[in-house]
Amino acid sequence: MTAISRYPVPELKDLPEDMRTRILEVQAKAGFVPNVFLTLAHRPAEWRAFMAYHDALLVKDTGSLTKGEREMIIVTTSAANQCLYCVVAHGAILRVYEKKPMIADQVAVNHRKADIPPRQRAMLDFAMQVCTASHTVEEADFAALRAHGFGDEDIWDIAAITAFFGLSNRMANVIGMRPNDEFYLMGRVPKAPKPAA
Amino acid sequence: MTAISRYPVPELKDLPEDMRTRILEVQAKAGFVPNVFLTLAHRPAEWRAFMAYHDALLVKDTGSLTKGEREMIIVTTSAANQCLYCVVAHGAILRVYEKKPMIADQVAVNHRKADIPPRQRAMLDFAMQVCTASHTVEEADFAALRAHGFGDEDIWDIAAITAFFGLSNRMANVIGMRPNDEFYLMGRVPKAPKPAA
Amino acid sequence: MTAISRYPVPELKDLPEDMRTRILEVQAKAGFVPNVFLTLAHRPAEWRAFMAYHDALLVKDTGSLTKGEREMIIVTTSAANQCLYCVVAHGAILRVYEKKPMIADQVAVNHRKADIPPRQRAMLDFAMQVCTASHTVEEADFAALRAHGFGDEDIWDIAAITAFFGLSNRMANVIGMRPNDEFYLMGRVPKAPKPAA
Amino acid sequence: MTAISRYPVPELKDLPEDMRTRILEVQAKAGFVPNVFLTLAHRPAEWRAFMAYHDALLVKDTGSLTKGEREMIIVTTSAANQCLYCVVAHGAILRVYEKKPMIADQVAVNHRKADIPPRQRAMLDFAMQVCTASHTVEEADFAALRAHGFGDEDIWDIAAITAFFGLSNRMANVIGMRPNDEFYLMGRVPKAPKPAA
Amino acid sequence: MTAISRYPVPELKDLPEDMRTRILEVQAKAGFVPNVFLTLAHRPAEWRAFMAYHDALLVKDTGSLTKGEREMIIVTTSAANQCLYCVVAHGAILRVYEKKPMIADQVAVNHRKADIPPRQRAMLDFAMQVCTASHTVEEADFAALRAHGFGDEDIWDIAAITAFFGLSNRMANVIGMRPNDEFYLMGRVPKAPKPAA
Amino acid sequence: MTAISRYPVPELKDLPEDMRTRILEVQAKAGFVPNVFLTLAHRPAEWRAFMAYHDALLVKDTGSLTKGEREMIIVTTSAANQCLYCVVAHGAILRVYEKKPMIADQVAVNHRKADIPPRQRAMLDFAMQVCTASHTVEEADFAALRAHGFGDEDIWDIAAITAFFGLSNRMANVIGMRPNDEFYLMGRVPKAPKPAA
Repeated sequence: MTAISRYPVPELKDLPEDMRTRILEVQAKAGFVPNVFLTLAHRPAEWRAFMAYHDALLVKDTGSLTKGEREMIIVTTSAANQCLYCVVAHGAILRVYEKKPMIADQVAVNHRKADIPPRQRAMLDFAMQVCTASHTVEEADFAALRAHGFGDEDIWDIAAITAFFGLSNRMANVIGMRPNDEFYLMGRVPKAPKPAA
Repeated sequence: MTAISRYPVPELKDLPEDMRTRILEVQAKAGFVPNVFLTLAHRPAEWRAFMAYHDALLVKDTGSLTKGEREMIIVTTSAANQCLYCVVAHGAILRVYEKKPMIADQVAVNHRKADIPPRQRAMLDFAMQVCTASHTVEEADFAALRAHGFGDEDIWDIAAITAFFGLSNRMANVIGMRPNDEFYLMGRVPKAPKPAA
Repeated sequence: MTAISRYPVPELKDLPEDMRTRILEVQAKAGFVPNVFLTLAHRPAEWRAFMAYHDALLVKDTGSLTKGEREMIIVTTSAANQCLYCVVAHGAILRVYEKKPMIADQVAVNHRKADIPPRQRAMLDFAMQVCTASHTVEEADFAALRAHGFGDEDIWDIAAITAFFGLSNRMANVIGMRPNDEFYLMGRVPKAPKPAA
Repeated sequence: MTAISRYPVPELKDLPEDMRTRILEVQAKAGFVPNVFLTLAHRPAEWRAFMAYHDALLVKDTGSLTKGEREMIIVTTSAANQCLYCVVAHGAILRVYEKKPMIADQVAVNHRKADIPPRQRAMLDFAMQVCTASHTVEEADFAALRAHGFGDEDIWDIAAITAFFGLSNRMANVIGMRPNDEFYLMGRVPKAPKPAA
Repeated sequence: MTAISRYPVPELKDLPEDMRTRILEVQAKAGFVPNVFLTLAHRPAEWRAFMAYHDALLVKDTGSLTKGEREMIIVTTSAANQCLYCVVAHGAILRVYEKKPMIADQVAVNHRKADIPPRQRAMLDFAMQVCTASHTVEEADFAALRAHGFGDEDIWDIAAITAFFGLSNRMANVIGMRPNDEFYLMGRVPKAPKPAA
Repeated sequence: MTAISRYPVPELKDLPEDMRTRILEVQAKAGFVPNVFLTLAHRPAEWRAFMAYHDALLVKDTGSLTKGEREMIIVTTSAANQCLYCVVAHGAILRVYEKKPMIADQVAVNHRKADIPPRQRAMLDFAMQVCTASHTVEEADFAALRAHGFGDEDIWDIAAITAFFGLSNRMANVIGMRPNDEFYLMGRVPKAPKPAA
């Protein structure tokens, strides 16, 4: 079997209590442990910061971005960064949240061709700008998003999700993080397991 | 005076205790509060994760990378991402740690021309690969670094520092984070103030 | 329902006999008519040339490339060209031929991370070179492929498949060719319908 | 003498009747056999599809694109793909059709500086977009062309010619197809021989 | 000590009279001899042409560009070309002329974030276009600059300064021209020495 | 008739004596005045420096580069910069010097396919590196050229010619410098006029 990381992957039983608890919760919810939880656990301090950042951006009730839209940003920009783990894992979560079995493949290949409304198109255009050329972001880019109803806090969310998964993409690419087989099919057929990070 | 962020910047007195304490510590050490602490404080949960990640990578005693080398990675890759805040702020810290007043300008413009030994050159080449094309990282890249004496944990460090500051660069570029004036001169003249994140 | 092309799509009954016959054959085999057959039928002469070229490259018994390998080349290079139709449709066919439900997503995101042997990796590296920088192809590139056991006729096959689908990708992108919904799931679950062009 | 292809080039006498007939017709008209006819004849089935596609796009009386404009598209995009055969051979044909001895060199180097009216400039801008970034083509690009009087069928023509010669460019680059010496001078001096594919 | 050039560097005493005189003048004014004067002196004829071109563009009283603006163009485009010598040396001169200790670092990292008025932003946008994609310059680009009050002669100046330092950047990069240590600090603290080419 | 420059072009009679003399000499030799002499004459001081630099690089007897090789460098890199004037004018001179009517078109489209020996191929590879990525030049690049028999002075020549024509390309692109009609045919037919700058 192919390794899920170039680095040593700790066993669940050897992890500190807080990490093990979180991982068991995810497992209970998703039916399996997404490999990101195990592979990054090689470095507990970074793991905790990573999860805290993740939760601060994705597990919250403020802002106008839906959970599906956040995943859409992740899949689109992760495809630009050619990160297999994030495209496959978050593609699964996107399908589940949006209840659209084709949306993840669409945004991963070319978000311009996806079946999405102009508001989401503008959101993804901006996410791609942050992903590939953040130094060019200017007031005019904020104005374009406001014209689609995004507030400044939403724009921060789009940028921060893109930036955080840019970090995640780079780590996954370097350590060779392998997506769990379960993700590939999740959300494509009626009775998919529930999503996890 | 030019704003230090496109977003509201909280006042120190309005911040939660843990954030205020950390910021006052930095101020005591550096003589001023680096703007990253105030501008990102607009989002306390993200701020806490950001600082935890930062500390996990930069404030630790393991691995063979020196503090100066970590800053070298930050300045080199932040220049590639055209992030004014990080090039200027971490350029200052790099000068202070390395006690080399010219090194930051050198790696920011072209790390290939910097006055550094082959080991650091290889380190920066890899950091640039992670920064601009992480999807191409393969075993051969690990082998090249090992040939310069870097262990696998060092390679994770190089990648993680690059990835984390890629996040930081994108946020700074989007919110228009302005470097403190103090950073520009720090470490260029004999009696520089002490560095801060 | 979203249109499958920016251009008029002829009805099966209005097509010339030879085209209708071919399309009905495909339908009988696949269970549906892949949209490429209908959307390109807007131009019968080009359709006939397209199908003849397609068959000359993909429906033949010579050479060492397996049917699955040919599809692998198509999916990898079509992803580089961001062609939704070809990635989704040929991704389906690839899964069916290779009986590997994850292979298409892997090569579409980053062929370097796919579960493939070095020979196929070299094949895809060359296909990507032809796709993105064919002017740089030289004798050394032929030598590298020969070292993996590819003969000169195989190399022509790799190049020609890449070149032909580069044509296909551009047409699909311009006319907004939409993949049939059926392709998204095909080959991912045990009882997939049989593949079609 | 330098070979005209990395691959075996069949002799005219060994080719199937239909191919030989077509080639002799071209020879009678042009005074020589353009190398594309001989080098691609290494693969008869592909040759037939190639010529059928070529004729469907270039030998027809419908649409508003003149024969010269079609060649202009070929030369401009083939230069972007750095295909020596197509730039030289179709540059010759372009000069002959347009009776402008300088136009081919102009569009090959920089179509923005060519002595062409705004309509042709818009046509070539779109061809270059299809050539280098077809995934970005959207309704606005169609609108821009319509503003110059191009109908949707003309736009298909521009795209299809670009796409087909993108295939041709890649094949020529890979097999090292050498332009006939005759093409270099054709159409530059008063009494040029007649053009051939 | 690191060499200031890959090539032999002539001694002042061995140079022709006109060259020595010019160099001594610069030394008297700046307090040291900028390395460009010595390293390029390896080729006297080229040195004389280089200095004549330099003076024609930078030592003149016509046009609306200030001396500081000319240096701003040099620093911005030299950073794009990753030329250590020109960024450091002309960064120093820029600081001195503009009496702004932070401006050089700002335009070198990202001219979009520099503390400059819209007129200078437009000037630098155009300089960057000439630096990286001069083949795309068209009437509309002239119009954009005229809207900011630049005359056609100013536009020539912006282009010529960019073009000339593009030459200088390439020579400096190839010969490994090292900036004098003095430049790094010049203009950052109250009593800086006077600038030199 | 199309203008030869966006800027005013002085009449020969209005030019200073030294400039008029040089231009008349060129006219006597070439049979016409190449437009670069007239268009750049809009700025006499820059014109003189330009011609002095030109002569220092191209009119000299030292070094191992032949006159034809110098023109080959100019045509190859000017094509990369998409400069119509330099490709057409120096393409003519290259044909005349080398007595090879096809060489200029070959190197302009793709120098890798030109009929040149490995030594010239290495020379052009390096020229292209200086043209497009001079910041990456390192000792290994010098070693590669030395292996083909180039001395360090030859390498300076290659770099300086590339750098100088990079300047020329940018000026020509910005002012819209038009090549004289005479250049297009020169050197393609037996009795060509003699070359001019």
